[in-house]
Amino acid sequence: MDEYVMPNGMVVLGEPMAGVGSVAFDFMLPAGAAWMPPGCCGASNVISEWIFRGAGARDSRQLGDALDALGVQRSTSIGSTHIYIGGALESSNLAQALALYADVILNPLLNDEQFEPARQLVVEELASLDDEPRQRVMLELRKRFYPDPLGRSTLGEMEDLQDLTAETTKEIAESYLNVPQTIFSVAGKYDFEAVRRQIESVFGPREGAPLSPREIESTGPRYTHIPNEGAQVHIGLMTATARFVDDDYYNARTAVSVLSGGMSSRLFTEVREKRGLCYAIGARYHSLKEAAGITCYAGTTPDKAQETLDVIVGEFGRLAEGITEEELARAKIGLKSSVILHSESSSSRAGAIGSDYYMLGRVRSLDEIKERIEATSVDSVLGFLRSNPFREYTVVTIGPQEVRVE
Amino acid sequence: MDEYVMPNGMVVLGEPMAGVGSVAFDFMLPAGAAWMPPGCCGASNVISEWIFRGAGARDSRQLGDALDALGVQRSTSIGSTHIYIGGALESSNLAQALALYADVILNPLLNDEQFEPARQLVVEELASLDDEPRQRVMLELRKRFYPDPLGRSTLGEMEDLQDLTAETTKEIAESYLNVPQTIFSVAGKYDFEAVRRQIESVFGPREGAPLSPREIESTGPRYTHIPNEGAQVHIGLMTATARFVDDDYYNARTAVSVLSGGMSSRLFTEVREKRGLCYAIGARYHSLKEAAGITCYAGTTPDKAQETLDVIVGEFGRLAEGITEEELARAKIGLKSSVILHSESSSSRAGAIGSDYYMLGRVRSLDEIKERIEATSVDSVLGFLRSNPFREYTVVTIGPQEVRVE
Repeated sequence: MDEYVMPNGMVVLGEPMAGVGSVAFDFMLPAGAAWMPPGCCGASNVISEWIFRGAGARDSRQLGDALDALGVQRSTSIGSTHIYIGGALESSNLAQALALYADVILNPLLNDEQFEPARQLVVEELASLDDEPRQRVMLELRKRFYPDPLGRSTLGEMEDLQDLTAETTKEIAESYLNVPQTIFSVAGKYDFEAVRRQIESVFGPREGAPLSPREIESTGPRYTHIPNEGAQVHIGLMTATARFVDDDYYNARTAVSVLSGGMSSRLFTEVREKRGLCYAIGARYHSLKEAAGITCYAGTTPDKAQETLDVIVGEFGRLAEGITEEELARAKIGLKSSVILHSESSSSRAGAIGSDYYMLGRVRSLDEIKERIEATSVDSVLGFLRSNPFREYTVVTIGPQEVRVE
Repeated sequence: MDEYVMPNGMVVLGEPMAGVGSVAFDFMLPAGAAWMPPGCCGASNVISEWIFRGAGARDSRQLGDALDALGVQRSTSIGSTHIYIGGALESSNLAQALALYADVILNPLLNDEQFEPARQLVVEELASLDDEPRQRVMLELRKRFYPDPLGRSTLGEMEDLQDLTAETTKEIAESYLNVPQTIFSVAGKYDFEAVRRQIESVFGPREGAPLSPREIESTGPRYTHIPNEGAQVHIGLMTATARFVDDDYYNARTAVSVLSGGMSSRLFTEVREKRGLCYAIGARYHSLKEAAGITCYAGTTPDKAQETLDVIVGEFGRLAEGITEEELARAKIGLKSSVILHSESSSSRAGAIGSDYYMLGRVRSLDEIKERIEATSVDSVLGFLRSNPFREYTVVTIGPQEVRVE
């Protein structure tokens, strides 16, 4: 594990991987959806598009050409707290790729004439959600489950996007692409000393006033139905659990794995296999630094929607009543297997080490994760579930018919 | 590269990968959608679900428990020619996982009482497509582009699924899960001698009459519009190109990369960046053994649908008019970069070596692929495009409005 904190506060992390020829990197910029000023939901998304439309001495076209000439597989995503700007490529071109990304972050042109097409693309992306009820239900769910602004839509809100100007967006970009709060991570094949020196030489001289997250307000309504003439009812459900930073994190993860970890998991067995209620069913753990929940998605026909929701809520509740040793053993091996498989992808590792550092201030080793999963027991998981019962469920449905939420 | 052909014809392939602790494997069973008897479209999908509902001495529940206890991350998919049944896991449990999969393939219980829920799940999966126009348009496109039955829906057709009985499906499973035509592949960390011995001991004694694909008939209509009250027009377009088995394969792949390989690619620049016509746009190469095409998807608002289609068709046509050296260099490095990144995933490699063998009767090395990409030139790509001009486009749209197809 490589780690270096620059005098200005920016963090440089690295995880070498044996036997790979690729390298992946990620810049975590403190400009996520929850940090945007009021009335600017979606500005993060527009910024992530706009900064790639010309930077340093290159216009939009030249920048695209230069990145493609290095074979960079670009990845950009927006989270609650960060914009993630990453890339993966054959390792010999890493230094040149980092120089281009440094320009994108530190010297984006942010030309007025490139603002409108960038904004328009985000508007199109948001509009296309209407035809993607499965994605939409989960976005709407997070908005209502997390206290505002933590769950704000990472795509943006149409009303805010319509009003967004180049001037406002530029001001936001200038203050939120804040170097001292940036975390850079790299995984795969690289020379840490060279990477560290390069990053420090360009990002080292930059200072910035520390940004704080916005104040946390109240959560949304417990049940929301969004009418839609589609064929299915899309059900999203979320309930609070231990956060990534909490001692009970591994107990919470193991509990989710009992619910939804594999073919023999409870939701899969009860909803899909035995009752044939729906094809797509699954629960996942989701955590921000400040709050966490277990999310569950199910898509089913209107006549089966109520039964599907009832069975799901029943299985969540039944969890604290008892778990067998065999069930727990399967849940643990499923989790460990997933950790091992993810650990072999450079992109996945670059993302994971940056996220660990943001959450914990340090990076967990693969051995630590496996040991902590191993250390959970039927007693520890049940103890956790009984002292932290699922009290409330936030539910969103999209479809031709509502459900009854107790 | 490890390779072994059993006396009965079944093929065992392996690709060791340095530095990984996982192993992935895939069974390619000659029971894909195009091989199903008339009136049984979707039987492949039901079979792939049904065979996991109990096998050998284990009922459905016990089999799920046993697979989860090994930490197997199961993957199943249906293609035109094959059912792919795969898994990925920590390598020490490989032998036990293979024993369970061998049971699933050779000794599935195929109980009558498990047939109906298996069929019902596939019906649900197909019904859910109504709310996924983006996926649906591409399935409908392949149906019309490929000569029947090659492009048949891998999910199934509702009419056929409604009529499917346990008896018919069992007969199909018994003849199409044909061992001598099965290709097994493994990639990651494994001992080939041990794997080969285990596979041969269980699959070696099995014989089977060779199956032939169904006779190839005519292709579907050039333009189909499927009315839908959604927010967007989903456009799918496909046109014929060189097959995977043809000499011009790498010229075709490079041409697609010029069209749609990265930020600087033509479709991305013309449709997305300059005109802001849509958020999602991309072209891909798709090949069966018998035929191949370039597919293109775009999702856009009704008022921009016609312009989007016209620009796409314009860019396809303009390709043969000229390509610059820089453009070709970027297309080639983009392709090579993608090859390198995929080569580092055990699941991706297990799938790729099986597919190579089915298509070519041998597995291409990473070096061969890189060299062949490198060997393409502006002259070779333009020469290919000019002697094989895009003559016809098959187009499918789903949305509130038709487009005009010239």
